[in-house]
Amino acid sequence: MPPFLTPLHTDALRDAGIPAPWTFGMADRVRFGELDALNHVNNVVYLRWYETLRVIYLEQYGLYDLAGPDPKFVVKTVGLDYRAEVMRGAPYINVARTVAMRNTSFSMEYATFVNGQITTTGTALVVLLNADNSKRALSDALRQVFLDRDGAVQM
Amino acid sequence: MPPFLTPLHTDALRDAGIPAPWTFGMADRVRFGELDALNHVNNVVYLRWYETLRVIYLEQYGLYDLAGPDPKFVVKTVGLDYRAEVMRGAPYINVARTVAMRNTSFSMEYATFVNGQITTTGTALVVLLNADNSKRALSDALRQVFLDRDGAVQM
Amino acid sequence: MPPFLTPLHTDALRDAGIPAPWTFGMADRVRFGELDALNHVNNVVYLRWYETLRVIYLEQYGLYDLAGPDPKFVVKTVGLDYRAEVMRGAPYINVARTVAMRNTSFSMEYATFVNGQITTTGTALVVLLNADNSKRALSDALRQVFLDRDGAVQM
Amino acid sequence: MPPFLTPLHTDALRDAGIPAPWTFGMADRVRFGELDALNHVNNVVYLRWYETLRVIYLEQYGLYDLAGPDPKFVVKTVGLDYRAEVMRGAPYINVARTVAMRNTSFSMEYATFVNGQITTTGTALVVLLNADNSKRALSDALRQVFLDRDGAVQM
Repeated sequence: MPPFLTPLHTDALRDAGIPAPWTFGMADRVRFGELDALNHVNNVVYLRWYETLRVIYLEQYGLYDLAGPDPKFVVKTVGLDYRAEVMRGAPYINVARTVAMRNTSFSMEYATFVNGQITTTGTALVVLLNADNSKRALSDALRQVFLDRDGAVQM
Repeated sequence: MPPFLTPLHTDALRDAGIPAPWTFGMADRVRFGELDALNHVNNVVYLRWYETLRVIYLEQYGLYDLAGPDPKFVVKTVGLDYRAEVMRGAPYINVARTVAMRNTSFSMEYATFVNGQITTTGTALVVLLNADNSKRALSDALRQVFLDRDGAVQM
Repeated sequence: MPPFLTPLHTDALRDAGIPAPWTFGMADRVRFGELDALNHVNNVVYLRWYETLRVIYLEQYGLYDLAGPDPKFVVKTVGLDYRAEVMRGAPYINVARTVAMRNTSFSMEYATFVNGQITTTGTALVVLLNADNSKRALSDALRQVFLDRDGAVQM
Repeated sequence: MPPFLTPLHTDALRDAGIPAPWTFGMADRVRFGELDALNHVNNVVYLRWYETLRVIYLEQYGLYDLAGPDPKFVVKTVGLDYRAEVMRGAPYINVARTVAMRNTSFSMEYATFVNGQITTTGTALVVLLNADNSKRALSDALRQVFLDRDGAVQM
C-alpha cells in the first residue's frame, strides 16, 4: 500500500502554505461527482468534507480513547460560509481545529484552502454523550489534547 | 402520471399539523441511502433536503421570473441545528420560508417535522447576483411575494 | 400527514401509462442535487434510485417477514443500461419486478419511465443470507409472492 | 501543496501488490459518509468511485485531447459484482483499464483491492459522441493509447 499523505499535521500544512493556527488537514482534488449543475463544488459537499475530516481528526487525535467508555461525539449545530466557488479538478486542503471547550461540548472550525486562499469556512458544536444520550463532561485528557494541539480555550 | 402531493402549500400543511407561519413544504419518507452507519438520517442529508426544497420554493413562487433577467440565487451562509435524530422509513415534512429581506439578499428558515415535532432546523442567507456575479437589488415584485406569502420583514 | 402516493401498485401504474408486466413503482421529480456537471441526472443516481425502490419493494411485499428469521437480502451483482438522459425537474416513475428465482437468490429488473418512455433499465441479483452470511434457500412463501405478484419464473 | 500520491501508475501499483494487467489506480481510505446503515461501504458508492477513477483516467491518459474536437465520453452500460464487503476506515486501491475497443466505443474494467484482495469488480461500456450526440469513431491516436498502456484488444 502506498503511504497516505493525509492527514496532514502542522509541518506539512505549513509547507503547503496553510498558516497558523491550523494544525490538522487533508488534501485532495475535487472529484467529478462533487460538482453540481452549476459546474462547481456543490454547497452540500463541503459539509460532507468537514464530516470526513472531523471523524479522521477524532481518530488521529485519539479522542475516541480519551473520552471514556463508548463515547458518542454528536454534532449539535453546524454553519458554513461560502466565500468563493471551487471548480472541477481543483486541488484543495481542508483544515480543522478545536477552538473552545465547555463542560460537555467543544467548538470546531473548518476551512477549505485552494491555492492558499480560503474559499469556505465552517463551524460545528460537538457534544459528548453517554450511550444513553445523556451528556458527559469532557475528560481532563480530552481537554489537554485540545489545549496542547489546537490551543483551544476553556469557556 | 399520478399527481404529485408535494409541494405542499398552507392549507395542506395545516391539515398535516404544521403550524403557522410555515407556508411551503414537501413530504417524503426517509430512504435507505439517507441513513449512515449510526442508522439514522445523516447530518449532511438535511442540507441536501433544504437545498432541494429551496430550489422548488424558488420555482413554485415564480422567483426566477420575478428577479429580472438571468438571476443567480446564491447561498452565502447556511446553519443547521440538530435537535433529534430521524430514523429509517420515517415520514417527514420539510418546510421553508423567507423571514427577512435586505437590499440584495434574503434570509430563509427551514425545519424538518416528524410526527408533528421539529427535529432539525436550518437557516440560509441567499444573495441575488447578476450573471457577472455582481450583486443585484431585489426587485419590488420579489419583495412583494416574500411579504405576501411568507410575511417576510424588510431589514 | 398527507397520504403518500408512492409506492404505486399495478392499477396506479397502468393509470400512469406504465405497461404490464410492471407491478410496482414510485414517482418523483428530479431534484437539483441529482444533477451533475453535465446538467442531467448523474449515472450513479439511478443506482441509488433502484436501491431505494428495492428496499421499499421488500418492505411492501412483506418479504422481510416471509424470508425466515433475521434474513439478509444482499445484492450480488447490478447492471445499468443508460438509454436517454433525464433532465432537471423531470417527473419520472421508477419500477421494479422480480423476474426469476433460483435456490437461494432472485433476479430483479428495474426501469425509469419519463413521459411514458424508458430512459434507463437495471438488473440486480439478490441473494438471501443467514445472519452468519451463509446462503439460505428461498422459502415457499417468498416464492409464492414473486410468482403471484410479479410472475417470476423458477429457474 | 503536498504532492498527490494518486493517480498511481504501473510501478506504484506493483509496489502496492496490485498485479498485472492493472496499470492505473487510485488509493484512499473509506470515509464515514461512504458507509450505510449496514456499517459497510454502500453498494452505490462503488459506482461513484469508478466514475471518479474513469474521469481521472481519461484526463491522465490525455484522451480528451486525442479524441478530436469537443469529444463526449458517455457511459452506455455499467455492471458491478460485489464479492466482499469493505469496512469503515479501510485503505483501498481502485484500479481501471480498457480491455477492448470497437468502432465508436470501448470497454473498461474496474476493481477494488483491499489488503491485496479484490472485493468488487466493475465494467463500463463507454461510447464516444460528437457534440450533437451522434457517434464518433475512435481516433487512431486513442486506439494507440489503449493498446500501448492497457493492452486493449480491437474487437
